[in-house]
Amino acid sequence: MSQTLQSTPRADSFFMPAEFEPHAGTWMLWPQRPDNWRLGGKPAQKAFAAVASAIAQFEPVTMGVKTDQYSNARQMLPSHIRVVEIANNDSWLRDCGPTFVVDGKGGLRGVDWSFNAWGGLFNGLYFPWDLDDAVAQKVLEIERVDRYKAPLVLEGGSIHVDGEGTCITTAECLLSPGRNPDLSKDGIEAHLKNYLNVEKVLWVPRGVFHDETTGHVDNILCYLRPGVVALTWTDDKSDPQYERSAEAYDYLTSQPDAKGRKLEVHKIHQPNPILITDEEAEGVDAADGTLPREAGDRMAASYINFYLCNGGAVIPSFDDPHDAPALETLQKLLPDRRVVSVPAREILLGGGNIHCITQQQPK
Amino acid sequence: MSQTLQSTPRADSFFMPAEFEPHAGTWMLWPQRPDNWRLGGKPAQKAFAAVASAIAQFEPVTMGVKTDQYSNARQMLPSHIRVVEIANNDSWLRDCGPTFVVDGKGGLRGVDWSFNAWGGLFNGLYFPWDLDDAVAQKVLEIERVDRYKAPLVLEGGSIHVDGEGTCITTAECLLSPGRNPDLSKDGIEAHLKNYLNVEKVLWVPRGVFHDETTGHVDNILCYLRPGVVALTWTDDKSDPQYERSAEAYDYLTSQPDAKGRKLEVHKIHQPNPILITDEEAEGVDAADGTLPREAGDRMAASYINFYLCNGGAVIPSFDDPHDAPALETLQKLLPDRRVVSVPAREILLGGGNIHCITQQQPK
Repeated sequence: MSQTLQSTPRADSFFMPAEFEPHAGTWMLWPQRPDNWRLGGKPAQKAFAAVASAIAQFEPVTMGVKTDQYSNARQMLPSHIRVVEIANNDSWLRDCGPTFVVDGKGGLRGVDWSFNAWGGLFNGLYFPWDLDDAVAQKVLEIERVDRYKAPLVLEGGSIHVDGEGTCITTAECLLSPGRNPDLSKDGIEAHLKNYLNVEKVLWVPRGVFHDETTGHVDNILCYLRPGVVALTWTDDKSDPQYERSAEAYDYLTSQPDAKGRKLEVHKIHQPNPILITDEEAEGVDAADGTLPREAGDRMAASYINFYLCNGGAVIPSFDDPHDAPALETLQKLLPDRRVVSVPAREILLGGGNIHCITQQQPK
Repeated sequence: MSQTLQSTPRADSFFMPAEFEPHAGTWMLWPQRPDNWRLGGKPAQKAFAAVASAIAQFEPVTMGVKTDQYSNARQMLPSHIRVVEIANNDSWLRDCGPTFVVDGKGGLRGVDWSFNAWGGLFNGLYFPWDLDDAVAQKVLEIERVDRYKAPLVLEGGSIHVDGEGTCITTAECLLSPGRNPDLSKDGIEAHLKNYLNVEKVLWVPRGVFHDETTGHVDNILCYLRPGVVALTWTDDKSDPQYERSAEAYDYLTSQPDAKGRKLEVHKIHQPNPILITDEEAEGVDAADGTLPREAGDRMAASYINFYLCNGGAVIPSFDDPHDAPALETLQKLLPDRRVVSVPAREILLGGGNIHCITQQQPK
């Protein structure tokens, strides 16, 4: 029931709306793989359930789950959250799910990118990724939404759009050799323009320090509204993140967007460095081919990895002194939304955060 | 997203509409288990795809499929048929799926019966049946339809309703010891009345000879419209089916329905006896606990096991001299529908037919 279209969104006047536009709902996937999530995924499942419940205050949520976890997920989630079977290799629907596009006249379609676990055999995080790569199509089938199959390896977390012609990405990620080694920067940009239907792509140099996604944009910065961006920040010049955030700041404030606007950039101070504990590392299965979780490793924690939903925003917290100021600042920057925080350490331990595990379906 | 309601359809003024009423669509499951379907399910998959395509001429079809067959099913089915993951033990959605009920005011809910593979540990056809038993809930989740959990082991193929207060079933099936041994006939009838919201239950004594479902009503007779029934028949008094059809005829023509009508019963002559061939039997895996398919066994073939859909009817054919008369008679009896036939031997080999593999979702 999902026809595969041979054209592009641009050719058909469809475009990706911004995340801050109204949603029909949110898609997520249920965590379970024991070589990424400690203790058989049980703490992560609680954290994902809390995120789903927080979002469900604002809009409908659908949780995709592998068959063997269906019953457990159904019982751990409140009944107003829809649970459907969607097999997957891991639970990052932002990255393996579809990018929905609209025509502004009620039309809805989906872009199905190629997914290779953030770098394929070059520097991907696990093998295989066949089930993840099929997730976008399965979501579109359930919703009876036609799809474009984009000839590009790309994850949803590596792009942000303002819905008015601008896409922001990072060169670190999109030009990394594990994704589209045969495409030039211009070639990749041409695909972004055709499949997101944007006029201008802003290439921030790098993402967050030690981010295993090779620097996804959605962990370092995000749009709050057209022309207004939030950026993860540190005042500590000795922190390896400082240089990354500073160069992003300099780049963003020097580049006009597709509408010729100068971007307004708000700094959100990052939490103090968060390291994997011995106990946390011990709870994860060792598995050949899967990125190990090692005690003492610094995680790529950022408040920016939050999710905008209808009338709300769901922000990660880390039991850190910076939690409260981040929440307060974001609430001020998003005066028309109710900003809520959800403890996210267990999500971070798997390599991402709230934005990485969610994907909006526009209205 | 499917709330489980604590009341009953009857208490809430919901009822099961007849199959001949308008549908929103049809649900099916994809066959694959090699201990029931010969040659790894490949011939059956072709037959199911043909049934799905035939129905899709008339209304939307959704095919549920286990993860490992998703890609194959998606490619074997035309793109206008929706494919979703629904794990199952076998492919009889009529029997393990929900019974949809409506309130006549646009409300739609589902009854989730208990399923035990047609007889559980007493005389069920395979073990385990846990995935089948979860199918109804999963269908209702996908459709965001609230459910009633009925305290009764029952398959959809063991009931037919006219949507005007009458249910027809068979005593052979509903009173068999493998289903609800602790319930009396009156107790079972009370559940049917509460969950289908009918006033009268007609208890035909037996179903079709050698029917492994313990005599499902949907293989021996069906409603064409209120007060009008089609019945499988044979003129050969030496055929073990003769006595079964004759007693059903006598019963049906002697019992007024809920509206006080005398039923009009049309006989549809069955195909000649169809036996499993050596080649067919050899293609099926042997498995402990699964009903074996043995060469020479007579199959419970009947033209009655067809499916009514919006403006159509999809009838099984068996490459038998009775195919054409059955099609012609049913077309005359269903003048407002286009009656089409689909070769069904490969479905029959798995133990059922077109009605057994389909379930209507009312409009």
